[in-house]
Amino acid sequence: MNSQFIQDTPAALVDVVRMQANIDRMQQRMNQLGVRLRPHVKTSKSVEVALRQSRAGAQGVTVSTLKEAQEFFEAGFRDILYAVGIVPSKLDRALSLIRKGCDLKLITDNVAAAQAISAFGQEHGHDFNVWIEVDTDGHRSGVQPESDLLLEVASALSAPGAHVGGVMTHAGASYGFDTPQDLAKIAAQEAAGATKAAQRLREAGFPCPEVSIGSTPTALSYQQLQGVTEVRAGVYVFFDLVMHNIGVCTKEEIALSVLTTVIGHQPEKGWVIVDAGWMAMSRDRGTAQQKHDYGYGQVCDQDGNVLEGYIMVGANQEHGILANAGSPDQDIVSKFPIGTVLRILPNHACATAAQYPDYLALMPDGTTEKWQRFYGW
Amino acid sequence: MNSQFIQDTPAALVDVVRMQANIDRMQQRMNQLGVRLRPHVKTSKSVEVALRQSRAGAQGVTVSTLKEAQEFFEAGFRDILYAVGIVPSKLDRALSLIRKGCDLKLITDNVAAAQAISAFGQEHGHDFNVWIEVDTDGHRSGVQPESDLLLEVASALSAPGAHVGGVMTHAGASYGFDTPQDLAKIAAQEAAGATKAAQRLREAGFPCPEVSIGSTPTALSYQQLQGVTEVRAGVYVFFDLVMHNIGVCTKEEIALSVLTTVIGHQPEKGWVIVDAGWMAMSRDRGTAQQKHDYGYGQVCDQDGNVLEGYIMVGANQEHGILANAGSPDQDIVSKFPIGTVLRILPNHACATAAQYPDYLALMPDGTTEKWQRFYGW
Repeated sequence: MNSQFIQDTPAALVDVVRMQANIDRMQQRMNQLGVRLRPHVKTSKSVEVALRQSRAGAQGVTVSTLKEAQEFFEAGFRDILYAVGIVPSKLDRALSLIRKGCDLKLITDNVAAAQAISAFGQEHGHDFNVWIEVDTDGHRSGVQPESDLLLEVASALSAPGAHVGGVMTHAGASYGFDTPQDLAKIAAQEAAGATKAAQRLREAGFPCPEVSIGSTPTALSYQQLQGVTEVRAGVYVFFDLVMHNIGVCTKEEIALSVLTTVIGHQPEKGWVIVDAGWMAMSRDRGTAQQKHDYGYGQVCDQDGNVLEGYIMVGANQEHGILANAGSPDQDIVSKFPIGTVLRILPNHACATAAQYPDYLALMPDGTTEKWQRFYGW
Repeated sequence: MNSQFIQDTPAALVDVVRMQANIDRMQQRMNQLGVRLRPHVKTSKSVEVALRQSRAGAQGVTVSTLKEAQEFFEAGFRDILYAVGIVPSKLDRALSLIRKGCDLKLITDNVAAAQAISAFGQEHGHDFNVWIEVDTDGHRSGVQPESDLLLEVASALSAPGAHVGGVMTHAGASYGFDTPQDLAKIAAQEAAGATKAAQRLREAGFPCPEVSIGSTPTALSYQQLQGVTEVRAGVYVFFDLVMHNIGVCTKEEIALSVLTTVIGHQPEKGWVIVDAGWMAMSRDRGTAQQKHDYGYGQVCDQDGNVLEGYIMVGANQEHGILANAGSPDQDIVSKFPIGTVLRILPNHACATAAQYPDYLALMPDGTTEKWQRFYGW
């Protein structure tokens, strides 16, 4: 690695070889299943990353904020699903993007917002393409596939100013499972709920051309996708320790890590102090409730080889405390001298990446590039 | 409030009236105790905020990254303490800042780094002003005040190229207490450890002019500060729910909140879905281990009045789930209709603020301003 970059720790290192393998793996699965892949770019918020997903065959992107929609549209992405329920007060911002040429799809799960969208569309002479959010696992938003509310929301959208472009669901509850059997079950449930909702809408006279489902764990667990038109997934592009605990990736497939430098020790406690704290790792402790708790992250050497047993046991804003999770090391100072550079695999790639203005992309030829990412709303 | 800004949720709202009261309160305390206040600007990373601290009487700033040192130096702050152990590979960046006129103080707690600083200084014809980090509570970094290591580090710094400019300590363990008695005890311990270390250094022939201590809980708990020259504190400028649980502020003194909008409901669960998730709040769950767990934050109305019992019980990347922490509400839809704007008080202001490119500053006259903040290293 370019030693000039190693000086600037902490840094968000993207191993591009690993990332490309993750992109290819997911794309091939979706190709085999006969559906489109619409990556969720909230994970990377980076045009460089999303372009590689497109080149591999992805169609369109999913975003979680209008800022993401704006940034990716300006970078040339036209087909964009804004997968968070629209706030009526944001409709003017959405319409402004559409008027510039963005094929922006909105979502909602309630009559009040649906009426507001229709009214705003009618007032401004635009017919919004709105997908109805369906709840297939009870974990967050959405209408029940069997509910009357599904048809009420569709009716509210069918007034001039808006139309039902599809249904979408996200089985976020899949993050709570860690066996192939349970994952296959929640994956099938996600697909069944969405296709059921689409079927009911069509029987009631709403066209509903699109059926969009997905999460990284379910995307890697579907057996068949009859009736589904597209799958959304985000974190698969990097993977992380949460995904490893769920069982959908190995540690060696995790493409994002935090490059850090040893700044001190507390030898009698077996502690190594590094210059990556929670500002560099994020406060995400997603593995705390899983079968293996990695603290704030898994320690690897500078080349990315996992140092089994060593994790970040504590974090302050700009200090991380590394230790052997088993028994305290007696020779921590000689093992990790001042200035030693390490990589830390994160619990949650979306949260860790969000702490950085750019990625240090480690290219296949060993050179590094800076890839911009953005933040804010 | 300006309705134009309310559309752009989530936003990091700073109530400037509250913030100024927090600034004045801390400054008056330090004035009474007869010490300088060197605010830790890692909390705000905003020149607008730091300028208000300076105008109230603060002298110099504390930073946690060289990026902060650069940004604040460029904004006119000259007296800067970089309060994280220096990595030898960052010395060139530090020296470059010093050569531009920055009065930058470094810290270390080990012989290896002290030798590297001295060698680098000698090589480049500069005499680094280095403060030795002292451990007064066992929570992280630092040498023991009574240890031989203290004098060994000082000796390593006294070679040409560096000198001992002072000692510094941070009793981060104060975050673990919540009674005035315990806080007064850890505050006294912090001051005693630092002055003891300074005394030993002076007896050994090292001048050690500065004795720097502090954390927000201890800063608000010192009884006297004989022998201390300056106090550092950061989060007091905004305060947060963690500080409220510790007992050093009321909820009404918390100056930072997240402005958010209701986007949906799950009425049978008593859930309100808002457009502020963990990206807007941070993943910090600092109140989880305290006497009152506020989930991801305390819900307030649009004007900042606390809605007792309502907290953010769950958070995904761009979705927050609000609920009555007691019994689920039966009338959540009518209480919080779609489009309702709320404020959420954060667990940890430093972590929440870090998620934003700017603050929405609510000025004393009711108008709003955008105040830039920066991130990265």
